[in-house]
Amino acid sequence: MARKAFSEYSIIDFIKKMFPQTGNILPDYDDAWGCVLNRKHLVFAGDMLVETTDIPPFMTIRQMGFKSFTVSVSDIASKGLAPTYYYLILGLPRGFGWGRFKKLVEGWRDAVSFYGGTLMGGDTNESSCVTISVIVLSLSNKLPIPRSGGKLGDIVAVTGTFGETYVGFRLMRSLDRLPGFLRKRVLRKICRPVARLREGIALNGVAAACTDSSDGLAVSLYNLIHGTGKGILVERLPVAEGLEEASRILRAPFSQMVFYGGEEFELVTVIPKEKWGTAVKRVEHAGGSLIPIGRIIKRKGVWYRREDGRTVRVLRRGWEHLK
Amino acid sequence: MARKAFSEYSIIDFIKKMFPQTGNILPDYDDAWGCVLNRKHLVFAGDMLVETTDIPPFMTIRQMGFKSFTVSVSDIASKGLAPTYYYLILGLPRGFGWGRFKKLVEGWRDAVSFYGGTLMGGDTNESSCVTISVIVLSLSNKLPIPRSGGKLGDIVAVTGTFGETYVGFRLMRSLDRLPGFLRKRVLRKICRPVARLREGIALNGVAAACTDSSDGLAVSLYNLIHGTGKGILVERLPVAEGLEEASRILRAPFSQMVFYGGEEFELVTVIPKEKWGTAVKRVEHAGGSLIPIGRIIKRKGVWYRREDGRTVRVLRRGWEHLK
Repeated sequence: MARKAFSEYSIIDFIKKMFPQTGNILPDYDDAWGCVLNRKHLVFAGDMLVETTDIPPFMTIRQMGFKSFTVSVSDIASKGLAPTYYYLILGLPRGFGWGRFKKLVEGWRDAVSFYGGTLMGGDTNESSCVTISVIVLSLSNKLPIPRSGGKLGDIVAVTGTFGETYVGFRLMRSLDRLPGFLRKRVLRKICRPVARLREGIALNGVAAACTDSSDGLAVSLYNLIHGTGKGILVERLPVAEGLEEASRILRAPFSQMVFYGGEEFELVTVIPKEKWGTAVKRVEHAGGSLIPIGRIIKRKGVWYRREDGRTVRVLRRGWEHLK
Repeated sequence: MARKAFSEYSIIDFIKKMFPQTGNILPDYDDAWGCVLNRKHLVFAGDMLVETTDIPPFMTIRQMGFKSFTVSVSDIASKGLAPTYYYLILGLPRGFGWGRFKKLVEGWRDAVSFYGGTLMGGDTNESSCVTISVIVLSLSNKLPIPRSGGKLGDIVAVTGTFGETYVGFRLMRSLDRLPGFLRKRVLRKICRPVARLREGIALNGVAAACTDSSDGLAVSLYNLIHGTGKGILVERLPVAEGLEEASRILRAPFSQMVFYGGEEFELVTVIPKEKWGTAVKRVEHAGGSLIPIGRIIKRKGVWYRREDGRTVRVLRRGWEHLK
């Protein structure tokens, strides 16, 4: 029997097998974990930002501080919940120094005042590079939106367009090849990613399923149907405007830039048809937008109907640690 | 004005100033953080184990897995509470591989079956060295024991003896200089540290204050009186047996080995005089022992009355990250 490659997902599978879960109100493999506590729901998410693998060279320390909160808040936002408390686990290299540390804390302050919630405590350690783990805890009367679900015909939608991070990560060290307006947008998207918190909260009660696109849209779509036995047909690409020049430079079609980027932190959600109007209104009222891109279908897997009418399979490929 | 050195404690001070806390049922600077939730108490602690700074060369991967839980469980134990849920944030270097990973998971399983509680979820990342953050969450009707407190005459006690880790960390690469029986004990203490969980739970309801000695006994004693305006007089050294030879090799008196070790994970607690008998009985019933080492006094600071009758100040010195 072939041995599974050592990668993020196979590791998680192994841990899950070794530690059967009990009491989780969210499905296995969800972006968060939750339990019921005296009629309240206690939902947790946590993510780790590692300087050497998650921080592009042109990002400032303050932006790194902000992003360290965004990655975890995005998980909670995708559950339709707001952050109540944050717990911080920090690893800093010896000699990091006050100058950089104060900028990091400024980024955290930006994030806490932007997303709300209270930083309640943490732990400081020495490590070989900067690592920041933010654990977000949400206390709520509301139930979290599960990561997967939906019935035939339900609408698959996203809260923003895709493509810029694909361009940015692939042209990391030669961004000057891009037109000025696009370079600016790419830099902003990568350096100051924002969790769709208000949109997520607006979706609670109407969405059948929700996740965030931190590992890329393709992976998110597969996650939405995980365990449902159904599939998704993408009929409209949510492609960011003005990517023509980048597409030429990278020799990548729009579909590739949209499906296989990652770190966008857009929400990817399933909305029952009968609730579509309400969902759009609620998200717009929250200051965002909901873009329909396809629907739940019977045929398993994720499919994309191209402009020429041909339907092709979307690969389950995206950012995976350790691969 | 002199600028404060960049170190663990000054960093924490800075973060606390920048993020005023609200709703914490434990005092500032405590080993854990807690809030009230519908008459239940939700208490959190988390610690990060970093391969390059926290793992001695002779420790196995499985032992590292066990220790990653011990460091966080010890914080919860010092609050007199049991772990309910664990959340794991993992950073692994590329190419870590299944062989070592399975041993790591065995260590986690050892820990979860030993300490109880449920591993509820986590997050896996790529990093330059192994980092394991275990967040422990305790749900309980009981209140946590605060880190500092106690009145004049209260008894200061510990759950075990000290000295072996001091010897081990200083003779890290020349342990063969120690007598065989001592080398074994030192290795066991360093490689398989155990949180005093049952002792901590037994102390809940009788102890006025409690902390663990992960940063050394001296620091723990200072932490017990932090903000109380009182002091501690140590009248009896809780020194481990058989350290004579090590004392000669290291040219260190027993007091130094006892006060300035660290990573012992013994509980250091303040017991009101009138509850001493009950406390001893409860801890012994839990399978442990409670060793009186001194008492709360009026004179600020931590003091040690030597065998020759002279009283000397114990320095607030111990393990501090980044220093």
